[in-house]
Amino acid sequence: MAKTPLDERLREFMDRYIYPNEKPFEDSLRHNRWKVPELMEELKDKARAEGLWNLFLPDSNFGAGLTNRQYAPLCAIMGHSLIAPEVFNCNAPDTGNMEVLVRYGSPEQQDTWLKPLLDGRIRSCFAMTEPDVASSDATNIRTDIHADGDSYVINGHKWWSTGAGHPSCRIAIVMGVTNASAPRYERQSMILVPMDTPGVRLERRLSVFGYDDAPSGHGEIVFDRVRVPKSHIIWGEGKGFAIAQGRLGPGRIHHAMRLIGSAERALDLMVERVLNRTAFGKPLADQGVIRQWIALSRIEIEQARLLTLSAAEKMDQAGNKAARREIAMIKVVAPRMALSVLDRAIQAFGGAGVGPDTPLAQHWANARTLRLADGPDEVHLDQLARDELKAARQRMEQS
Amino acid sequence: MAKTPLDERLREFMDRYIYPNEKPFEDSLRHNRWKVPELMEELKDKARAEGLWNLFLPDSNFGAGLTNRQYAPLCAIMGHSLIAPEVFNCNAPDTGNMEVLVRYGSPEQQDTWLKPLLDGRIRSCFAMTEPDVASSDATNIRTDIHADGDSYVINGHKWWSTGAGHPSCRIAIVMGVTNASAPRYERQSMILVPMDTPGVRLERRLSVFGYDDAPSGHGEIVFDRVRVPKSHIIWGEGKGFAIAQGRLGPGRIHHAMRLIGSAERALDLMVERVLNRTAFGKPLADQGVIRQWIALSRIEIEQARLLTLSAAEKMDQAGNKAARREIAMIKVVAPRMALSVLDRAIQAFGGAGVGPDTPLAQHWANARTLRLADGPDEVHLDQLARDELKAARQRMEQS
Amino acid sequence: MAKTPLDERLREFMDRYIYPNEKPFEDSLRHNRWKVPELMEELKDKARAEGLWNLFLPDSNFGAGLTNRQYAPLCAIMGHSLIAPEVFNCNAPDTGNMEVLVRYGSPEQQDTWLKPLLDGRIRSCFAMTEPDVASSDATNIRTDIHADGDSYVINGHKWWSTGAGHPSCRIAIVMGVTNASAPRYERQSMILVPMDTPGVRLERRLSVFGYDDAPSGHGEIVFDRVRVPKSHIIWGEGKGFAIAQGRLGPGRIHHAMRLIGSAERALDLMVERVLNRTAFGKPLADQGVIRQWIALSRIEIEQARLLTLSAAEKMDQAGNKAARREIAMIKVVAPRMALSVLDRAIQAFGGAGVGPDTPLAQHWANARTLRLADGPDEVHLDQLARDELKAARQRMEQS
Amino acid sequence: MAKTPLDERLREFMDRYIYPNEKPFEDSLRHNRWKVPELMEELKDKARAEGLWNLFLPDSNFGAGLTNRQYAPLCAIMGHSLIAPEVFNCNAPDTGNMEVLVRYGSPEQQDTWLKPLLDGRIRSCFAMTEPDVASSDATNIRTDIHADGDSYVINGHKWWSTGAGHPSCRIAIVMGVTNASAPRYERQSMILVPMDTPGVRLERRLSVFGYDDAPSGHGEIVFDRVRVPKSHIIWGEGKGFAIAQGRLGPGRIHHAMRLIGSAERALDLMVERVLNRTAFGKPLADQGVIRQWIALSRIEIEQARLLTLSAAEKMDQAGNKAARREIAMIKVVAPRMALSVLDRAIQAFGGAGVGPDTPLAQHWANARTLRLADGPDEVHLDQLARDELKAARQRMEQS
Repeated sequence: MAKTPLDERLREFMDRYIYPNEKPFEDSLRHNRWKVPELMEELKDKARAEGLWNLFLPDSNFGAGLTNRQYAPLCAIMGHSLIAPEVFNCNAPDTGNMEVLVRYGSPEQQDTWLKPLLDGRIRSCFAMTEPDVASSDATNIRTDIHADGDSYVINGHKWWSTGAGHPSCRIAIVMGVTNASAPRYERQSMILVPMDTPGVRLERRLSVFGYDDAPSGHGEIVFDRVRVPKSHIIWGEGKGFAIAQGRLGPGRIHHAMRLIGSAERALDLMVERVLNRTAFGKPLADQGVIRQWIALSRIEIEQARLLTLSAAEKMDQAGNKAARREIAMIKVVAPRMALSVLDRAIQAFGGAGVGPDTPLAQHWANARTLRLADGPDEVHLDQLARDELKAARQRMEQS
Repeated sequence: MAKTPLDERLREFMDRYIYPNEKPFEDSLRHNRWKVPELMEELKDKARAEGLWNLFLPDSNFGAGLTNRQYAPLCAIMGHSLIAPEVFNCNAPDTGNMEVLVRYGSPEQQDTWLKPLLDGRIRSCFAMTEPDVASSDATNIRTDIHADGDSYVINGHKWWSTGAGHPSCRIAIVMGVTNASAPRYERQSMILVPMDTPGVRLERRLSVFGYDDAPSGHGEIVFDRVRVPKSHIIWGEGKGFAIAQGRLGPGRIHHAMRLIGSAERALDLMVERVLNRTAFGKPLADQGVIRQWIALSRIEIEQARLLTLSAAEKMDQAGNKAARREIAMIKVVAPRMALSVLDRAIQAFGGAGVGPDTPLAQHWANARTLRLADGPDEVHLDQLARDELKAARQRMEQS
Repeated sequence: MAKTPLDERLREFMDRYIYPNEKPFEDSLRHNRWKVPELMEELKDKARAEGLWNLFLPDSNFGAGLTNRQYAPLCAIMGHSLIAPEVFNCNAPDTGNMEVLVRYGSPEQQDTWLKPLLDGRIRSCFAMTEPDVASSDATNIRTDIHADGDSYVINGHKWWSTGAGHPSCRIAIVMGVTNASAPRYERQSMILVPMDTPGVRLERRLSVFGYDDAPSGHGEIVFDRVRVPKSHIIWGEGKGFAIAQGRLGPGRIHHAMRLIGSAERALDLMVERVLNRTAFGKPLADQGVIRQWIALSRIEIEQARLLTLSAAEKMDQAGNKAARREIAMIKVVAPRMALSVLDRAIQAFGGAGVGPDTPLAQHWANARTLRLADGPDEVHLDQLARDELKAARQRMEQS
Repeated sequence: MAKTPLDERLREFMDRYIYPNEKPFEDSLRHNRWKVPELMEELKDKARAEGLWNLFLPDSNFGAGLTNRQYAPLCAIMGHSLIAPEVFNCNAPDTGNMEVLVRYGSPEQQDTWLKPLLDGRIRSCFAMTEPDVASSDATNIRTDIHADGDSYVINGHKWWSTGAGHPSCRIAIVMGVTNASAPRYERQSMILVPMDTPGVRLERRLSVFGYDDAPSGHGEIVFDRVRVPKSHIIWGEGKGFAIAQGRLGPGRIHHAMRLIGSAERALDLMVERVLNRTAFGKPLADQGVIRQWIALSRIEIEQARLLTLSAAEKMDQAGNKAARREIAMIKVVAPRMALSVLDRAIQAFGGAGVGPDTPLAQHWANARTLRLADGPDEVHLDQLARDELKAARQRMEQS
């Protein structure tokens, strides 16, 4: 099997183990939504055994060593199912957190937290967004991290920490202010906070539309005089912004890829549906409006895919920072595209589209959230425009 | 208080009793989602005491005797909150069912079912859509109703029966085939089926974008050799289609009105939010893009409102059938408008927009469903086009 | 005939005299585009004889004395054809100019200019927009009007003065600065400038999407030390802004009404086309996509019509100033709606849609311009949002 | 200079010779719109001298021998200006006609017509679309070509033959029916008809929106008993469809590329405009709405560019036929994208956007036409959907 290309192996795995287990997985949560179903651990074992594990990590010491361009189509395949990424240990926010630890973690931090994360034995969360401020402007963040002897003491209020509610979640990466009077982009730090530290309180799990996204969930967390050793700081004081910039690039492109998978799933389902369903005397597939939906969906997916692959290449060749413009573009494009394709599929399915019998509505809710997570579209569009205007100003001055 | 106009009284009631009770109502469901909270009964008592009760019913023997045009703005006010309509005994599908019983019910049927419904003592559901066929084409419906001695025996499978899961739901109006060889539009009948009749099985409650809409819910029901007395047929055999036509008009216009209320709520919340929230150094309200959203939302709401009022007037003056075109238009326009306004509000709120702390996401899920319920947009648009083409053909023949 | 309602008479006139003369009118311009065809004068005589003349003017001393609400549907009918408004002496900018003279003109000004305009013997233009500044912000206007003895001397550069190129254009209403140090909204005045005054130079006629709109046209005019008697000022120095506000309301609503007519014409043509044209084995009218276009067009027209009528009523009942919000809404809605409907019709016609054999492309160009004339959409939307925000602020302060 | 990459040389040529000559070129047509300005011949000489000539032709015996992928960005640069393609001998429909003669022409045909076309000494037109039938379905075409002795006699009525009105147009490629009873796709042939053959009548030149597109223009042509030698048939009787398929691929991708150039030009102009223009106290470039326009335009252009390049690569690697899906996608995407970007630019320019002082309105009219030329969007979308459905059906049968 070793010679079979990864995408084929992945597709086969999806067909064999993922799609047929979506409903059993959901059913297994019926009695206790916040316990990891054994089914998930079995699926993870299978994926690990077949070498479909940690494919997201470009660093070959720890992971598969694939480039972004190589990982992109694989990530899109995983995106077909909302339960798949965890099976392959490729789900947000753990992938982003692992990248942070690979790049910026101390050997001790890597040993303690990265290793079990790479093994899929524990989960993690990322605590950045705060309820009281517009966190799309990260300089607004208020959580306080102050040194006290050999410790840091953390006080703050976070929410939308995806994964914080996961029963295996053991560690949070927390963003907060270590020095409010430092230069603007050196005020923030990131620090590792074990979830069982006294003073860490999971206030509640937030639903997205009506979905609790169990057993992962989105946590609202209060940090109330939480004390951790100084060694828990990542990279160093004042590096929070720099780490965030490094973290967000791959995170955004992974989201974009998964959304392309969401859209592909929707189009597949829609096409099958309209081939099998009859109304007013002819199959839905023979109705012109439906056919326009199919064609437009294919076009939108294709355009988003090409843009994402192009961004991945730029990241591989020139680095995450140089690819800022491209990353901003896919951050805006991918969720809009997925929402548009999913919405058409929902419309083609009628009641089954909004209900629990297709994955469409939940994929939609996920995609809608991604127009907000890591900053709303408008922030990214504004930044893109500033770059265009700056380039034009330079052009005009030269001529 | 008698002289205060109804809309003012209603607005006051909303401010005083409804908005502040939205969260307590949701909280009261925490331990048992399928039990009616006492809070609801208290609110209903208050509404009844203030004469804000059964305002939907144009028939003055039973209800408030308001015209559609008079009821429209009141219904829009109720639509601001998803818990309000039941408080005023004006919620779907009970309003539609009560109208059916007022117009087509026998004195005995009215006595047994209409009276407790008007009193708000019981709830009802409407069982029309079926999972196995494209029910937007009602001639597809397969549920079988056959006479057997003094009884009818019913066999069928229905879903998306809103209210079927409500703990007070006692009666279903079921649509099915009594004579498959009758002329196309005389094959169907409607029949009253008490929910506790042997063979009626609530298979499950369906969620909509993750929302269970407790304690009402959307039921999937199996009717397995269900036997009811012949007197339970409404109006007579073969009248199902005629009743459906009569029922759907008011139902659709009520939905449209409530959606205008949803959108007004969203715009109110968005405007307050952007006045109070700062990002990148200035209030969101000072950002041009947000201001375009506000203005476009106002315009879209205003246009939908005028169209709905115009349809209501036509119904009052010329009857539901003559207003078919107008009703089809608002059926298409109102959900799209509400979705557009709600989506902008969600975007302005960020995480709070998709989560449980604002009512936006649930209003959105409700509005999205209404692009499908009672037939998808495409069916109504197609019918509208046929009418235009028919009129043009006549014009062309005359000239 | 006196008892026949005006709309019926107008429709009949359109059928009999306008539509059949569109092509002959265009042909008559072939050899000299800037000469008024005799055909136009004949049509005007007919319209005047049938009492279909000056219907736009609410002032019954001078015109038909119809309210805005009464005139609206008539104006929409005229809007079906681009040559119709002049035939009925109801074309822009003459209607707006006549309104200015009725309201603010001195008896002498009315005698000299209003009378021949009402008779249709001369035409006029309105010189406001300037090429060098963003005129959507009227405080930017730079044309200088300074007193010199018994005269005013005018220096400035204007463009997009519709009608300035018309061979019968005799008079311009010019907006300019009389006192740059007055309070912001009292700096501007309006003044009457006969087109044959020395120093008035029609620089060129501007085309709109390639159309010269002969024989009316859009003029670029230079005013080079133009001297007129002091009596030519309208109302008084510093009243320019106040007059503009008064003038723009009716002007905008007339444009909106005519655009509804444009859209109705487009829909009529599209429907006839698709009934008569076959592709891929069936009439275009049987293709689902085309039918969606027809239905959406009907809905959009209907919504714009209701909004315009509602604005007209508000103007009649509360005055132009109080109806500012409503006028801003139709200013935005009507051109967008017309463009959308016209674009679908163009698509249904193929080559004939973009070429000279249907009036669609020219109506489109006209509608596109009206998203800019009297201020671009964005300015009106921004103003609408400010009003919403202001109202919300007041609401929030009170509660 | 030989080593400078083609795109740089082309860009330099555009800056130096094309943009500054757009207005002089238009001016030179003032007195006689249907005479080739000397300026054009001078520019062609310059382009030829610099080796920027016939770049479109992949066949290296006749042209530059570039692949589609290599030519694509060059073609996009040319698309910045509507006068540029002819300067480089790369304008439609001549490029398509030259490709036909390269691939399917006899040596004699190549000698007589291809050579002077490649030299830019004559121009040609393509006569396919007919006014009386929906030509998007090419089987509808009615023009009759029947053999008579050593000749073919042609009778038919064509329109939208771009270039037919060009003063240097010497030759038409005409599509017509040679055998109405042959299999469906073998009924049609293409034949060379010199424009001075007796019976060829240029009925009129059609305008697009208000543009006559002089000195090229779009002709309506009547073929009235036109007699040409049998040797004028291209490839052979019944090959019309096959040639059309071969011709349309490159033609469509060239259009797409040029449209990307149109959009780039619009974005450049818009950005410069908003940096230089102030309204309501701040530069337009500081207004959020305008910035969203800029960012969305950049994203849309980028996505269309990637899709077009991807189609070009597929054509190079797998052939025009295998790239059918990709070609259909860019046929739909490119005009829509260009229209969207151009429309924003027009809105940012106000009056100057719709008038003659910017090239925006004419680019817009051109792009709008390209949603219709070579078949309306709807036909291509429908074909794309059929392909998706067919693939899905096969997938479903296999599993």
